[in-house]
Amino acid sequence: MSYMAKGFLSLAQSRKTAHEFSSKQVSKADLLRILEAGRWAPSFLNLQPWEFVIVKESQAKEALLKSAYYGIYTFGDFKGLPPVVVAIVLKKKYWEGQYGYPRRDKPGVFEAYLSIAMPASNMVLEATDLGIGSAILNVNAYVAERTLKLKDGDTAPLIVCFGYEKPGAKARKRSRKPMESLLHYGHYGGKE
Amino acid sequence: MSYMAKGFLSLAQSRKTAHEFSSKQVSKADLLRILEAGRWAPSFLNLQPWEFVIVKESQAKEALLKSAYYGIYTFGDFKGLPPVVVAIVLKKKYWEGQYGYPRRDKPGVFEAYLSIAMPASNMVLEATDLGIGSAILNVNAYVAERTLKLKDGDTAPLIVCFGYEKPGAKARKRSRKPMESLLHYGHYGGKE
Repeated sequence: MSYMAKGFLSLAQSRKTAHEFSSKQVSKADLLRILEAGRWAPSFLNLQPWEFVIVKESQAKEALLKSAYYGIYTFGDFKGLPPVVVAIVLKKKYWEGQYGYPRRDKPGVFEAYLSIAMPASNMVLEATDLGIGSAILNVNAYVAERTLKLKDGDTAPLIVCFGYEKPGAKARKRSRKPMESLLHYGHYGGKE
Repeated sequence: MSYMAKGFLSLAQSRKTAHEFSSKQVSKADLLRILEAGRWAPSFLNLQPWEFVIVKESQAKEALLKSAYYGIYTFGDFKGLPPVVVAIVLKKKYWEGQYGYPRRDKPGVFEAYLSIAMPASNMVLEATDLGIGSAILNVNAYVAERTLKLKDGDTAPLIVCFGYEKPGAKARKRSRKPMESLLHYGHYGGKE
């Protein structure tokens, strides 16, 4: 039974970061389905400020992954390169204000960042639904810009790795803060 | 046939912004299920830099919605207040660098923004799965901070409206850029 057959919540709870990939390739049909889910993500004013670079060449994948910030984990924790990496390019032309609407009166870089997270999120959910492992990683912008040959001002803050998890890959404990610590009613600090 | 039976892609393609809500309330069980989907979103280093304020009081909802930036659309396009609004609070304490990892060596505000988009995305997908209408809106930070009584430095760039769409509500045309305009291979501008 698929996750999605049990409803979206089950799918959302099952999504996890894969750290060890087998050499099994992701089929072209599956990759296109994953990208299609990304394409239908919501965005600020439906600007869709994203483009996707599909990276399969080992040297480029390694450069991107090595530049990823993963706290106490380093590239070494990712055993074996993922068969395919999708870099999410954030085009400069889609925002105008420096920080955008929260403080000014134009779409800005914050809205652009909010928007490019959504295709990444949709893509890993579709991958999970297909039984494909995934990892969203924040990469070093300089490395990404050079590796992907981006034009001036464009950047790629996120990459998404896809592949099949190696059988027997070490599973990390997945945790979330308890719901009661997150909820406020009416205003911040307000009780139910 | 439910979205679940057709898979995640179908759900992702069906999600849309609701502009006209009926007075029908969202049940507590459904709202908790929506919040639970948000709680399980991915985030940078699993920091989960979000908290949720549930807003049902009309004056507060109206203040937030009136402050929303929606391009050529204004509050008037939202007919009838949604029964419930969830404001996503971005806590200052969860990031350190001003702009974060893309340019420095610490989690920063860009990663925080990327991260808070993901619970919003999960919440509207769960709502869609439950047949509940939703709208993600960027709101004016000053208005949100005042309305939600946020502490210094915390902000709430996104709110998510939930409710049932009014029967016969005008449907906007939904569109996305063609896939071929988004894809690059190997590097930006690279062909397959």
